[in-house]
Amino acid sequence: MQTWKDYQEKNKDKFLNELLELLRIPSVSARSEHKKDMQACAEALKTRLLEAGADKVEIYATAGHPVVYGEKIIDPSKPTVLVYGHYDVQPADPLNLWHSGPFEPVIKDGKIFARGACDDKGQVYMHVKAFETMSKTNTLATNIKFLIEGEEEVGSPNLATFVKENKALLKSDVILISDTALISLDTPSMDVGVRGLSYIEVEVTGPNRDLHSGVYGGAVANPITILAKMIASLHDENNHITIPGFYDDVVEATTAERKLMAEAPFSEEEYKKDLGVNELWGEKGYTTNERTGIRPTLELNGIWGGYTGEGAKTVLPSKAYAKISCRLVPNQGSDKITEILINHLKKIAPPYIQIKAELHHGGEPYMTPIDSKGYKAAAKAIETTFGKQPIPVRGGGSIPICALFEKELGVKIIFMGFGLDSDNLHSPNEKYDLANYYKGIETIPYFHKYFAEQ
Amino acid sequence: MQTWKDYQEKNKDKFLNELLELLRIPSVSARSEHKKDMQACAEALKTRLLEAGADKVEIYATAGHPVVYGEKIIDPSKPTVLVYGHYDVQPADPLNLWHSGPFEPVIKDGKIFARGACDDKGQVYMHVKAFETMSKTNTLATNIKFLIEGEEEVGSPNLATFVKENKALLKSDVILISDTALISLDTPSMDVGVRGLSYIEVEVTGPNRDLHSGVYGGAVANPITILAKMIASLHDENNHITIPGFYDDVVEATTAERKLMAEAPFSEEEYKKDLGVNELWGEKGYTTNERTGIRPTLELNGIWGGYTGEGAKTVLPSKAYAKISCRLVPNQGSDKITEILINHLKKIAPPYIQIKAELHHGGEPYMTPIDSKGYKAAAKAIETTFGKQPIPVRGGGSIPICALFEKELGVKIIFMGFGLDSDNLHSPNEKYDLANYYKGIETIPYFHKYFAEQ
Repeated sequence: MQTWKDYQEKNKDKFLNELLELLRIPSVSARSEHKKDMQACAEALKTRLLEAGADKVEIYATAGHPVVYGEKIIDPSKPTVLVYGHYDVQPADPLNLWHSGPFEPVIKDGKIFARGACDDKGQVYMHVKAFETMSKTNTLATNIKFLIEGEEEVGSPNLATFVKENKALLKSDVILISDTALISLDTPSMDVGVRGLSYIEVEVTGPNRDLHSGVYGGAVANPITILAKMIASLHDENNHITIPGFYDDVVEATTAERKLMAEAPFSEEEYKKDLGVNELWGEKGYTTNERTGIRPTLELNGIWGGYTGEGAKTVLPSKAYAKISCRLVPNQGSDKITEILINHLKKIAPPYIQIKAELHHGGEPYMTPIDSKGYKAAAKAIETTFGKQPIPVRGGGSIPICALFEKELGVKIIFMGFGLDSDNLHSPNEKYDLANYYKGIETIPYFHKYFAEQ
Repeated sequence: MQTWKDYQEKNKDKFLNELLELLRIPSVSARSEHKKDMQACAEALKTRLLEAGADKVEIYATAGHPVVYGEKIIDPSKPTVLVYGHYDVQPADPLNLWHSGPFEPVIKDGKIFARGACDDKGQVYMHVKAFETMSKTNTLATNIKFLIEGEEEVGSPNLATFVKENKALLKSDVILISDTALISLDTPSMDVGVRGLSYIEVEVTGPNRDLHSGVYGGAVANPITILAKMIASLHDENNHITIPGFYDDVVEATTAERKLMAEAPFSEEEYKKDLGVNELWGEKGYTTNERTGIRPTLELNGIWGGYTGEGAKTVLPSKAYAKISCRLVPNQGSDKITEILINHLKKIAPPYIQIKAELHHGGEPYMTPIDSKGYKAAAKAIETTFGKQPIPVRGGGSIPICALFEKELGVKIIFMGFGLDSDNLHSPNEKYDLANYYKGIETIPYFHKYFAEQ
């Protein structure tokens, strides 16, 4: 019988070329003009899952973008692993900062450059190829189900309904997700938590039309100035968020956990150098890893108003806008924080302007225990292929659907990510190292093997 | 001999149609793609000036957009009036707020809607048609020179050189400008001053690339947040500008002037209603008219950074930008204020970010006395056609070249504007009332007559 290693070695180029094909589809969920691309991407995945050995693959329509479901049931009495991932990607702009087309993947210095290379097409596709490896070598030890959605980057607005309506279909013993990072190939790690999210958009209206800034300037509130003042007030001089009630439900990390976090390898100098900043910023009293892991945040994701073109226009604009998102930690509730945030903005809005604020999307924070069967199987798989035990870390990102999965399906979620923080997720020049891609494909079959053995 | 009134009555439609043709040329000086339109607009003016009776018209190339010069010298011993105006217009965006195309003029409710209808094509063209009236009826009492530039809306960067190099050509006894407003046709007024300008652009850079706001948020300074904090700090709780030295050179208006200003008809309720705001905003201790007339201001003309498209993108952007302009009053110097402003921004920039700030354009404030020959001739002309003496007021806008004109050519500038503050200058749906257009054409010949008689 062919070994996993043999099979993967022989199919190395095929594994890569298929991923590149997938990356060529601009499946941007946030933009309505990509509706057809979303369908095309779902169909490509269906084809690949069937080729890899799935018994059955269906594309389910939703109120938004379709969900791809596939399965191979080898024996109903054996444990079932549900692999969750997403085929949608973040918008690619600002396009002018990409060194090559976001949907024209190129390999450079051992890295695949393309939107979605890591987040999450590359990581999803590792599972398809790991499944193929087990399937083609007749070594699949678990039943396997795939749930690959098309709306993760816009907050999974329709997945909850799908999950609630398809509990039997999705019945499983563990949910496995590769949509996070590890510290490095030398220092493997596994996320034990993801942060929640509350993402809103704010519109501030001053005068009912754009005005000449000479004729009216100084006498009518400028919505940009007012919005800036409102934003400026959201963090105090210690970069602590000032919104009353914001921290009420935060479960402080234990001294033991903070001590463990401090032991993970981290060089502030390298971090600053990589980002090109002279000084780091953040909430007083917490380290960088704590700020991105165990603390909630409030970030401005976008701002616009007035004249933003070439040259000068002396306008006092009617409107200014901002996109603001908070990352949440246990036990902050997304709905509650959204309400607190929107109400606070309305409360601090001065009478000179009118304000509208509304939710884009949200998601709950999620923590997974490190003593579950799934966590242990994943840690052992990583130890097998990396030669080292993974360090448990708290991830800064969000996978909005996690809390709902556990609630509706009653199983734990395991985050076995193979990306790197430096993969430029959501940024120009997103990349995924070939070494990480292949390492994932190599490691995942061991997860199934060890999970079945427990 | 035909009277002015007869000639104008007979040519009413022609006067309008020719203006509409001029308004169809998208002569946006700030946008490089309109370079050809600028030339076309200059040539159209040349043709019209010659038709109106000019002896000579030249289009002078500059380092930027061309200058149109025309003249009719009836007798070198007679006084010469130099009419200054501009054929360039502000950018038309945001386009979606226009009810009809900005360069497809329409007449509705007795008003011409188009970019440049009032500022300044409509007002310049009144002078061309007033000149035609005098020329065709053989009643021109002064020599007349036209200087119509194409860069007023971008700060007249090349006009100073042209003026300095062509002092003999531009020799005159008074400069007449229609690029301001009057209170109303019932309450005529004349501007006795225009504010200066200092217009800069600021770029704040945080990390060297756009980052995932989950992975890095909370640990790296967000340039939008920092820029907002910097902007917020520029006005104190009394909406007084906080930049050290900003007010140092301001000549406070006298109690007498403030008393006179307070007597001009003004309804705060109507002003608020027209603008759709519940409360006015501005520097404590000053009235609305004082805030826009005798006080310097600092306004945000534009802001942008991060994701500004449809939906949500969880990005911590690398850069954020703002366009900021100050209106200046006597004796503030544009260069000095620009320097103070840029240095202040650099000083308050925290070490987490890098800042670039640079001048877009500037211009000096200008005041004209009310006892000059030109002012008296204009006031008498207005009294003749309006039946009322004009009220002297301080305008809020800027005509950057005024101070230079006086310095280089040694003559006073007279502002005889026929627009209205509600003409949506620099805004969507700019308009010019037909009644004001024709009133200007009716009034201007009297200026020439009275100026010649003095």
